[in-house]
Amino acid sequence: MAKLWGGRFTKSTDAMVDEFQASISFDHRMYYEDIKGSIAHATMLAKTGIISDEERDLIIGGLESILADIEAGNFSFEVGLEDIHMNIEARLTERIGAVGGKLHTARSRNDQVAVDTHLYLRKEIGELAVLLQNLQEAFLQKAQENKEVIMPGYTHLQRAQPILFAQHMMAYFFMLARDFDRLQGVYERTDIMPLGAGALAGTTFPIDRFMVAEQLKFGKLYANSMDAVSDRDYIIEFLSFASLLIMHLSRISEEIILWCSAEFGFIELDDAHCTGSSIMPQKKNPDVAELVRGKTGRIFGHLMGMLTTTKGLPLAYNKDLQEDKEGVFDTIDNLKFVLTIYAAMIRDMRVNADRMYNAVTHDFSNATDMADYLGKKGLPFRQAHEVVGKSVRYCIDNNKWLMDLTLDEFKQFSPLFEEDIMEAITVETCVTNRNSYGGTSYAQVAQQFETAQKMLENQQVVIDKYTQKGL
Amino acid sequence: MAKLWGGRFTKSTDAMVDEFQASISFDHRMYYEDIKGSIAHATMLAKTGIISDEERDLIIGGLESILADIEAGNFSFEVGLEDIHMNIEARLTERIGAVGGKLHTARSRNDQVAVDTHLYLRKEIGELAVLLQNLQEAFLQKAQENKEVIMPGYTHLQRAQPILFAQHMMAYFFMLARDFDRLQGVYERTDIMPLGAGALAGTTFPIDRFMVAEQLKFGKLYANSMDAVSDRDYIIEFLSFASLLIMHLSRISEEIILWCSAEFGFIELDDAHCTGSSIMPQKKNPDVAELVRGKTGRIFGHLMGMLTTTKGLPLAYNKDLQEDKEGVFDTIDNLKFVLTIYAAMIRDMRVNADRMYNAVTHDFSNATDMADYLGKKGLPFRQAHEVVGKSVRYCIDNNKWLMDLTLDEFKQFSPLFEEDIMEAITVETCVTNRNSYGGTSYAQVAQQFETAQKMLENQQVVIDKYTQKGL
Amino acid sequence: MAKLWGGRFTKSTDAMVDEFQASISFDHRMYYEDIKGSIAHATMLAKTGIISDEERDLIIGGLESILADIEAGNFSFEVGLEDIHMNIEARLTERIGAVGGKLHTARSRNDQVAVDTHLYLRKEIGELAVLLQNLQEAFLQKAQENKEVIMPGYTHLQRAQPILFAQHMMAYFFMLARDFDRLQGVYERTDIMPLGAGALAGTTFPIDRFMVAEQLKFGKLYANSMDAVSDRDYIIEFLSFASLLIMHLSRISEEIILWCSAEFGFIELDDAHCTGSSIMPQKKNPDVAELVRGKTGRIFGHLMGMLTTTKGLPLAYNKDLQEDKEGVFDTIDNLKFVLTIYAAMIRDMRVNADRMYNAVTHDFSNATDMADYLGKKGLPFRQAHEVVGKSVRYCIDNNKWLMDLTLDEFKQFSPLFEEDIMEAITVETCVTNRNSYGGTSYAQVAQQFETAQKMLENQQVVIDKYTQKGL
Amino acid sequence: MAKLWGGRFTKSTDAMVDEFQASISFDHRMYYEDIKGSIAHATMLAKTGIISDEERDLIIGGLESILADIEAGNFSFEVGLEDIHMNIEARLTERIGAVGGKLHTARSRNDQVAVDTHLYLRKEIGELAVLLQNLQEAFLQKAQENKEVIMPGYTHLQRAQPILFAQHMMAYFFMLARDFDRLQGVYERTDIMPLGAGALAGTTFPIDRFMVAEQLKFGKLYANSMDAVSDRDYIIEFLSFASLLIMHLSRISEEIILWCSAEFGFIELDDAHCTGSSIMPQKKNPDVAELVRGKTGRIFGHLMGMLTTTKGLPLAYNKDLQEDKEGVFDTIDNLKFVLTIYAAMIRDMRVNADRMYNAVTHDFSNATDMADYLGKKGLPFRQAHEVVGKSVRYCIDNNKWLMDLTLDEFKQFSPLFEEDIMEAITVETCVTNRNSYGGTSYAQVAQQFETAQKMLENQQVVIDKYTQKGL
Repeated sequence: MAKLWGGRFTKSTDAMVDEFQASISFDHRMYYEDIKGSIAHATMLAKTGIISDEERDLIIGGLESILADIEAGNFSFEVGLEDIHMNIEARLTERIGAVGGKLHTARSRNDQVAVDTHLYLRKEIGELAVLLQNLQEAFLQKAQENKEVIMPGYTHLQRAQPILFAQHMMAYFFMLARDFDRLQGVYERTDIMPLGAGALAGTTFPIDRFMVAEQLKFGKLYANSMDAVSDRDYIIEFLSFASLLIMHLSRISEEIILWCSAEFGFIELDDAHCTGSSIMPQKKNPDVAELVRGKTGRIFGHLMGMLTTTKGLPLAYNKDLQEDKEGVFDTIDNLKFVLTIYAAMIRDMRVNADRMYNAVTHDFSNATDMADYLGKKGLPFRQAHEVVGKSVRYCIDNNKWLMDLTLDEFKQFSPLFEEDIMEAITVETCVTNRNSYGGTSYAQVAQQFETAQKMLENQQVVIDKYTQKGL
Repeated sequence: MAKLWGGRFTKSTDAMVDEFQASISFDHRMYYEDIKGSIAHATMLAKTGIISDEERDLIIGGLESILADIEAGNFSFEVGLEDIHMNIEARLTERIGAVGGKLHTARSRNDQVAVDTHLYLRKEIGELAVLLQNLQEAFLQKAQENKEVIMPGYTHLQRAQPILFAQHMMAYFFMLARDFDRLQGVYERTDIMPLGAGALAGTTFPIDRFMVAEQLKFGKLYANSMDAVSDRDYIIEFLSFASLLIMHLSRISEEIILWCSAEFGFIELDDAHCTGSSIMPQKKNPDVAELVRGKTGRIFGHLMGMLTTTKGLPLAYNKDLQEDKEGVFDTIDNLKFVLTIYAAMIRDMRVNADRMYNAVTHDFSNATDMADYLGKKGLPFRQAHEVVGKSVRYCIDNNKWLMDLTLDEFKQFSPLFEEDIMEAITVETCVTNRNSYGGTSYAQVAQQFETAQKMLENQQVVIDKYTQKGL
Repeated sequence: MAKLWGGRFTKSTDAMVDEFQASISFDHRMYYEDIKGSIAHATMLAKTGIISDEERDLIIGGLESILADIEAGNFSFEVGLEDIHMNIEARLTERIGAVGGKLHTARSRNDQVAVDTHLYLRKEIGELAVLLQNLQEAFLQKAQENKEVIMPGYTHLQRAQPILFAQHMMAYFFMLARDFDRLQGVYERTDIMPLGAGALAGTTFPIDRFMVAEQLKFGKLYANSMDAVSDRDYIIEFLSFASLLIMHLSRISEEIILWCSAEFGFIELDDAHCTGSSIMPQKKNPDVAELVRGKTGRIFGHLMGMLTTTKGLPLAYNKDLQEDKEGVFDTIDNLKFVLTIYAAMIRDMRVNADRMYNAVTHDFSNATDMADYLGKKGLPFRQAHEVVGKSVRYCIDNNKWLMDLTLDEFKQFSPLFEEDIMEAITVETCVTNRNSYGGTSYAQVAQQFETAQKMLENQQVVIDKYTQKGL
Repeated sequence: MAKLWGGRFTKSTDAMVDEFQASISFDHRMYYEDIKGSIAHATMLAKTGIISDEERDLIIGGLESILADIEAGNFSFEVGLEDIHMNIEARLTERIGAVGGKLHTARSRNDQVAVDTHLYLRKEIGELAVLLQNLQEAFLQKAQENKEVIMPGYTHLQRAQPILFAQHMMAYFFMLARDFDRLQGVYERTDIMPLGAGALAGTTFPIDRFMVAEQLKFGKLYANSMDAVSDRDYIIEFLSFASLLIMHLSRISEEIILWCSAEFGFIELDDAHCTGSSIMPQKKNPDVAELVRGKTGRIFGHLMGMLTTTKGLPLAYNKDLQEDKEGVFDTIDNLKFVLTIYAAMIRDMRVNADRMYNAVTHDFSNATDMADYLGKKGLPFRQAHEVVGKSVRYCIDNNKWLMDLTLDEFKQFSPLFEEDIMEAITVETCVTNRNSYGGTSYAQVAQQFETAQKMLENQQVVIDKYTQKGL
């Protein structure tokens, strides 16, 4: 297969080099964007008089037939043609003759691959936004379904204070809301058009970049051609977004794995989201959560890989930049999988309210409230803390919980204790009284549901906007 | 030194553990934020009736005297008191008696350290925004000072097409403008108040978080207490911002190092920004650029470190999170250094216009224009490319440049060549004709200057807003 | 302060650049190695006639007095003198006059800093080897002390099969043994002498590198001068070793945190290795384990940082390489701390054998043995697995354990069950029968103790060898 | 397709979960190792009386027919069967009936996948050793072919001292020799057998692990079953090796890219190893070198990914560990490609000795020798350095090189200069005189050739040993 750039060469490319440097094995997935970009380019070339209307029609007709063939599975990509751009251009020329070569007027592969990647990522961000919102809804729904359930809240994995299970779920909701927020920044910096930058310096043809941008629904244009062809910030920023998102999911995964253990027993996942063991008949493993936690490494690795690749590269395009795709494609594929399965898993998980209640009523996580009780009776907090610390020590040594103490025992530690201490340290009281904004009280959690609902509505507006940018 | 939490313990902490887990050696730098946060908290506690006005006045007076002492260098931090919060609280109680203990009412170290870190990072982001803008201005100024200078533009480090030196500088300007843009997102997600989250679940005291937020000039509040104490997204997002910024600087550093080499010789750095060799008397090394490129690793490492630390952590606070500070502090310190020195280095660097011009007129980077010439005479681009490729091969074999060819020689390759080919491939023509939006022509670069100026004005508005958020 | 390389410069270095590029703030910790290296160098210079014996004596005397001053705290390092080498050389010349300048004959800072770093790291590896062995011994001892204790073994954090606690401890012992093994490889590739490489190309003086190597007890010499000054493999390899080691510790830390939770309750850490909460009086947090787990990020980050820094650097020395020290110093400091505290924490932790036994006798982790029972009665394993799976399902639905089933109930699932099934599925039987090499039976674990003891003896030989290489 | 572990489940696995958690799409490449491991296992089961000889023969016959089918392309892998092990076992049972189920006696997928991965990586390490040696030979050969060629040696990318091109090539040879050395450590820690560890605790069957190890030619066995199934050190260590290797290649790639530039022009790559531009007819781009430099990111990313995945995992097997394969497979594929192409590219590259000579004779890299000249006349080195620094300044101001100075001019800077200074600073003298061990003199480089040759012979012994371990 003759190279399209062979004139100054005396020898053809080594076959292994061909294979090594070809990107068609992975960049073919951008065929749709490549063709849509070419159609917009051809339309503009005709409008500005660089090609004739007849040439435009021939080119667009050819491109559309190629698109149809690819989507029908009737197109074979060739490694010798290096990349998606050359594969399509070569086929176009086969079909419509030399006029096909005019499509490459006033552009270069450097700006062409950039525009494809921008369009492709923009589309995928739109799809991820929907999946992300769907997962947020799953957390919200699970919280609402279990809005009375009390469980131990932990710090240092030690029981700390009683909380609502819904408060715990909503913490994840709001983490994901920040992810949604960040995704919008990535979208904006992806939605910038590089086409027209040429190889690096712009072009001598009287093109109209604004017209192309409008056809491709780009929000902005790169203001500098060298920046346009060498910018990979949007990819790295996407991978940063992805790293934070999977980090969040690794945290909830860790908790789901804990909660599924025999020791915690707080939830049960649906059989459909677990697997068994080839050797141990009793096993029901939370594979999905484990695998998601495991995939954290892969995505951090892609981020680190792309940062490393771009380090120290001089302007403008360098072949190193071809390494920008596989990591981001793999990240997209995995995130879509993960978000979808996760939402289903959360929706279907069963909450063992009894186990949670039993846990929280057999621990010392009401100790802070006992100290607060003394505080309200006038004891300075540091002294109250000391009194309760000693009571806890006493309970541990005597194998009791605070609720098991008699009033006499309470009074041994401080004369301020009275009958009402019993009511003051029930887990229901503990929860109800943490009524500061954002706290775990029933009222505050209800407030969070409302806040969340409004956020989802605002997010939906964003999603709708993205949907309208589809090509 | 007695621990403030020792009641339930039967044995004191191992001295090495004390040292290992203490954070005072690095978190003391947030003393200002810690005290301002405490003053706001005390003010609110009085307003809501949790403490009396007299108690408030005593506490605030004590805190202000401690602040004065620290700033005067009259305060010694103790490892046994673990962190900045305990160091200040212990001293406060020493000074004003047991009432000092009331300051800790309705808050926990978990939300206190979070509010300190948010405030500290918010302040530093403000300062970095100024330094970043200053560096952008240096690039713009250097571009404007040298707006006629032509140099070879490169792809694959091979000379590609003639460009303006100013176009090259402006590429960096616009990269940094994206960094400024991203920094605003980080700022917004840092400017959220966690105080009032307590240990993890909110507090039973009737606090007013909105009032505290107003005093501390926070834009928003965390809507969920567990999220508030366990969120480190803003730190990771800051490190992602920093990684992209230093990556950009690693790219220009690579070029500065190249341009300072004997082989390129395109620029000369000021002696003040270079160092010599202890053994080789002739050496003048671009140390600053090399060191900045080297620091890329450190900052990527901090990002990767923080991502790793947060992976798989269950809610809410875990001691692992104490690792969130040193990396971000080191990043801030290095970025401030780097941005400042870099701006000075760019401003003072001397551009060797002659060396650049000589280079660009002794290469083949006008080959594209020669092909475009044929294109405009009607030859399809792919054939024109082939013709020029062969001409280049001929020149290499005969040790000539395209400009050295006679008209007869030109005609050997294509009869379409005429007298005007000579004018068509001068570097000035090449540059002037790349007049597409964002291209390297004089007109387009002038347009970029205007765009840049407007961006700077908009950025200044942001900077002013940040300045007004100072405490 | 006049630079030692200022001849070709017309202007002095910017003060901020001085500070930015100086390494004295961190490389001063290699003062001992720097001076020992210089003494060896001076000795060789005299032996080969490059300097006189009198000059040598003056130089060595001066160096020794500087060493004494530094160790007594009577030496102030100056930023303007850039690094440890220049600080010492400048002081030397102050003390002994111009002859001090002869010390720099036939060497460059490029090979001098390399030899310092090699010596420094070699020494620290020796110390780390001792601490690592100490931690292995702690695991071995804890295993031996509790050699009868049975606990649930987990996969997917689901109870899998009964194991000995000692088996679990020994898994960590053997992981650390691999770390020890790897450390030897790092040592060997650190123990190579670069001195004599000069700036990059060797020297014109008739030096004797072998003589210097012998004085400094180096095992090998670099065979190529350019490689000698630009090699940082040994640092990266050390950081790789450190990353694996801390990863291992992050795993046991995770388990210790789990085991300390109310839900598991398998161990109790000594009060001396825990801390409390400023707000929750009942808390006793496993801070050390959490912090070690958190430090995993920092060390991975240093590895990634150094890899990034070296990526794409041309030969030979570049200033980027100055970034090679802080990460490795921080890693060494943290590892020494971590290994020391960890060994103490393991030795002092209390094993709650009753909680473990209670857990393992109230779960389904004997299900494999029930299947094996059927297997030995002739049922193909896959069918046995199915039978037991159904029994487990039955027990879950009826709130029983396998041990609670009556023989009649057993027979409902398979007629092959007989009276002896009861004995066959006790946890003691489960453990005793896993007697394959490396398995969890008492006999196999005893065998592992012996294997471990022999490993420790072999390691001690290595440690002794390292000790003898002290300077 | 019925799961082999479905007994205790009431509901089948969600199809998307099936796909998400299946590894067959990538672990099928270990089919050979899986079958060889099973054959060894079956042989041992018969020898120890756990199965009969007839059963063994049936099983091995079935496995061999499956192996033949896979190699002939007549085997379709099913996602529903999760992994390579289950795919093969299910097919085996189809072919030979229920006896196929006996193959899984006394093993678990946890130890089975571990043994496959160990065998697979061991084989690939053997192949990589050959390719690595081949690349070392290419560097050695290129050095020997050009052993008289002089070029500028650089530090800070500034010309430093004249060196032999061969010295530069040999620096890479020795870097790669360290890689070979490290690879042996990885090999040793890969060559350890996990089979027989069962799910985590060993097995109750009377297996003979040593017999299996012998059949599979393993050097050692894991001494602890929990360590055996959870160890992934060898994979991480392999990725660390790979990271250092690609880092080395990124350095030479950077230099090759520089040397191919118009400015340096030191080498020319063969047309077969370069590509052109679709738009710029003159371009000949060093794509291979750029792509290799770009791939550095990918491999660092895989290392970071695997480290992250293993962080904080409790014992023993967790599903997260399934993420251990794709990164290592991708690394192997890329390294094999890279090493092969690189060796060819180095062998075929043309050295432009004239350009190098011209460069080194038109610079100041002989300045050190000029200082050494004064040193040998008795001037202390620091003063000599100063004199030469001023001479260089004078030359720069007067547009001369040191060689262009007249004796009178020399004497202006120091009266010590005499006629012989001219000879003393020719580049040939500079090179010849750097005759310290490892230096760049002709004699020393010849010595390095011998050292290298011996290293290659020793490496060949290792390679032969690896070859004999093939199954």
